[in-house]
Amino acid sequence: MLAEIITIGNELLYGRIANQNAQYISTQLTQAGFRVIQITTIPDEIGEIIEALSGAKKRGVEVVITTGGLGPTSDDLTRAAFLKYFNYPSTASNLAWSAIENHLGTAPGICCKQDNQVTIALPGVPAEMQSMLQQRVLPYLKSQFNLPTFYQKTICTIGIVEEELARILTPWEKQLPSHIQLAYLPNLGTVNLTLTTRLTTAEEAKKEIELQVQKVLPLIKDYVYGYEDDKLEEVVGNLLQSQHKSLAIAESCSGGYASQLIVQVPGCSAYYYGGIVAYNNRIKQEVLGVSERTLLQYGAVSQQTAMEMAQQVRIKFKASIGLSSTGIAGPGKAVNEINPVGAVWIGYADEDRCYAKKLQLTTNRLSNIRLTGYNLLDLLRRRLQGIYD
Amino acid sequence: MLAEIITIGNELLYGRIANQNAQYISTQLTQAGFRVIQITTIPDEIGEIIEALSGAKKRGVEVVITTGGLGPTSDDLTRAAFLKYFNYPSTASNLAWSAIENHLGTAPGICCKQDNQVTIALPGVPAEMQSMLQQRVLPYLKSQFNLPTFYQKTICTIGIVEEELARILTPWEKQLPSHIQLAYLPNLGTVNLTLTTRLTTAEEAKKEIELQVQKVLPLIKDYVYGYEDDKLEEVVGNLLQSQHKSLAIAESCSGGYASQLIVQVPGCSAYYYGGIVAYNNRIKQEVLGVSERTLLQYGAVSQQTAMEMAQQVRIKFKASIGLSSTGIAGPGKAVNEINPVGAVWIGYADEDRCYAKKLQLTTNRLSNIRLTGYNLLDLLRRRLQGIYD
Repeated sequence: MLAEIITIGNELLYGRIANQNAQYISTQLTQAGFRVIQITTIPDEIGEIIEALSGAKKRGVEVVITTGGLGPTSDDLTRAAFLKYFNYPSTASNLAWSAIENHLGTAPGICCKQDNQVTIALPGVPAEMQSMLQQRVLPYLKSQFNLPTFYQKTICTIGIVEEELARILTPWEKQLPSHIQLAYLPNLGTVNLTLTTRLTTAEEAKKEIELQVQKVLPLIKDYVYGYEDDKLEEVVGNLLQSQHKSLAIAESCSGGYASQLIVQVPGCSAYYYGGIVAYNNRIKQEVLGVSERTLLQYGAVSQQTAMEMAQQVRIKFKASIGLSSTGIAGPGKAVNEINPVGAVWIGYADEDRCYAKKLQLTTNRLSNIRLTGYNLLDLLRRRLQGIYD
Repeated sequence: MLAEIITIGNELLYGRIANQNAQYISTQLTQAGFRVIQITTIPDEIGEIIEALSGAKKRGVEVVITTGGLGPTSDDLTRAAFLKYFNYPSTASNLAWSAIENHLGTAPGICCKQDNQVTIALPGVPAEMQSMLQQRVLPYLKSQFNLPTFYQKTICTIGIVEEELARILTPWEKQLPSHIQLAYLPNLGTVNLTLTTRLTTAEEAKKEIELQVQKVLPLIKDYVYGYEDDKLEEVVGNLLQSQHKSLAIAESCSGGYASQLIVQVPGCSAYYYGGIVAYNNRIKQEVLGVSERTLLQYGAVSQQTAMEMAQQVRIKFKASIGLSSTGIAGPGKAVNEINPVGAVWIGYADEDRCYAKKLQLTTNRLSNIRLTGYNLLDLLRRRLQGIYD
C-alpha cells in the first residue's frame, strides 16, 4: 500500500518554517503499514496543487494526504484546487466527497475517494492536523485498506544519554535478528528505543518483539519510564495518585516549567496543589521561607538551598512531597568556578527524607529550563518507584 | 530565477528524521534571490531520482539541488542516477560535469550544467552539505545567474484570529501590487503576516514593502507586538525593563506556563520576581491570600477571583504589576453553564488599577494552557503600550 504526502504553503518553500507536518504524517502512515514513496512541497497555487495530485495519481498510490491552504484567507487555495481537480460536484458517481470535522479550528478537511484512491486534505496548523489524522483519517484508512502486519514497540528512557545507552546495548543489539530494526530517537533528556518488524501474522511479530524487549529490559530498567506514547508527567501523576501522595514544587531556574508539565495531565488536581516560582532571591526568602543564613552561607545555587526550597514548599502547601530547582540557566559566562552555566541542583523532600542532586546541563537557556523540568519529574519517578541514584 | 530541491533518502520518508536539509537550502536559495517552487522527497532508487530530475527539467527551473545518496554504501544511488540521467560521459559537448570538493567528509558533490540549467548533488550529512553550499555552490550560482533582489518583512500579531484579520485587511490586500506576495501564518494565538517581493534593486524592494507596511499598520496596530522573529515574552520583557516595572504572576489553569515563558528571556531577573501556581482552591486562599468570601460567592473561575489573585500576588511579591489566570482547562464536560471548558479569566493589577478579562478558548487542555499563557502576556503588553480593550 503506497502513500504520498503533499504539503502546501509558500512559507515552506521560503524556508521560514520547518516542515513538521510532513514528518508527522509520514511517521503515522509508516506505522499504519503504508509505504510513503514521495513527499512534495509546493506553493499555494491551484495549478501546482493540481499537478501534484495528478503526479501522485500517475504513480498509482492508494493514499494522498495534503496539508495547508484550507484557511479562510485569499492565499488558501487547496479547496478550490480539489474542486477543480475532481471536477466536483459535476463529476461522475464514482467520486465520494465528504468533509472532515475540525474540533480545534474553523477549517474542515476534505476526504475524496475515487477509483480506489483516497485523497485527503488537512489543515496546516499542526495541532488541528494531528488531531484530525488520529481521530478520523487513520481509522478510516485502516477500514478501507488491508494493511500488512506491522509491529512496533517503543521503550521510553530518561536519565541516560544516547551514546551511553548504545554502549550498554551493543551485545544485545548484535544478537537481534535481521528482520527486527532498532532505532534510537533522542529528545530533551529522553531517548526512545523503537523496535520494528513486519511479519506475516500479528501474533508472530508481537511474540518476536516482546521476546527482545524482555531481554533488553534488565540492562536498562532504572532508566525506563514508559512505553509507546507514555509521557513522564502522566507516569509520575499515576504514581502519585496510586500512592495517595500530593505534590508542591518550588522552582527557580526552571521558572514554572516543571509545574506546567504536571498540569498538562487531566485530573492532576487529585495530587497537585501548586507551587512557587521563586526566581528572585528575595522571594526565596520572603515568600518561600528559605533562611537568610542558608542563602548567605551556601549561595542560591547550592545543595542546601535546593533542599530547603523543597522542604519549605512542602510545608507551606501541606503536601506530602516537595520538589525544587535552582541553577544557572544561562546563556553567558559562569558565575563562579563551582557553578558554570548549566549547573543545576534539584531537590526532593517528604516527611522522612530530604536530599538534592546536582546536574550539569547545557549552555542553552531554553534547553536548560526544559531539561531541569524533566529531570525534576524523573527524580520524583525514581523515588516513587523505589529506585535510588 | 526558479529552483527546486530534491531530498533523497528512505529515512526521510519513514518520518524518522526531520528534513532539516530542505529547510536550510530553501532559506539560502530564497535569500540569494531564487524562487523555490518545489521540494520533493524521494527514496534511494535510481528510477525515482531520474523521474524527479525530469520533472524539474519539465518545469523549466534554472537550478536543481539534490541532497543524499552520495555515500559509500549500497543504498547510495544518486551518482549512478546522475550518470544515467545525463548519459555521461558519452553525452554531447553541451554538458559540463564537475566534482565539488567535500572537506568534511569523503563523498564529493556533483555539479552539472546543461542547456542553462544547473543541477547539483550534495551529500545528506547536514554539516557537509551546508559547508559545500556556502563555500562552493552559492558563489557559483551567483556568478552564473543575474539574480533579482529579495526583500521580506514579517509583522507579528496577537489577539486576533486569522479570519478577522483577513476581513480587516481585505481592502488593503486588494490594492497590493502583484509583485508583492502576502502570507498569513497562524500559530498558538498569534498570526504572522509576511510580505515578500523580488525587484531589481534592494532599495526599490525595501521601499515598496515598507510603503505597504506603513499603510497596513494603522488598520491593525493594537494587535502588532513585533516584527520578524520577535517573541512576545521578549517584547514584554523590554517594555517592563524600559518602564522600570517589576512583575509577579499567580496562575491557576495555566499552571506555570506564563511564568516559564517570561523566564525564557535572558536577563529577566531585572524585572521578574516570580509567582505562585495556585492550582488547588485551598492554595488560592491559604498561600495566595484570596478571600474565602470571594471564592464562595463568585467561584474560583470568576472575574472577582482573577482580580484578587492578581492583586494578592503583586502585594505578596512586592512587585509593581501582578497578573493572574483562572479557568477551565479541560478536556471534558462543562462545570456549569457559566463556565464551559475553555472559559478563562485573566487578571491585571498595579497600584492604580485592577481588572480582568474573559477568554473563551478551545476544548483542548494543552492548547488552553498555552493560549492562556500568551493571552496573559498580551494583556500586559497592551497595558504597557497604553492600548485598552
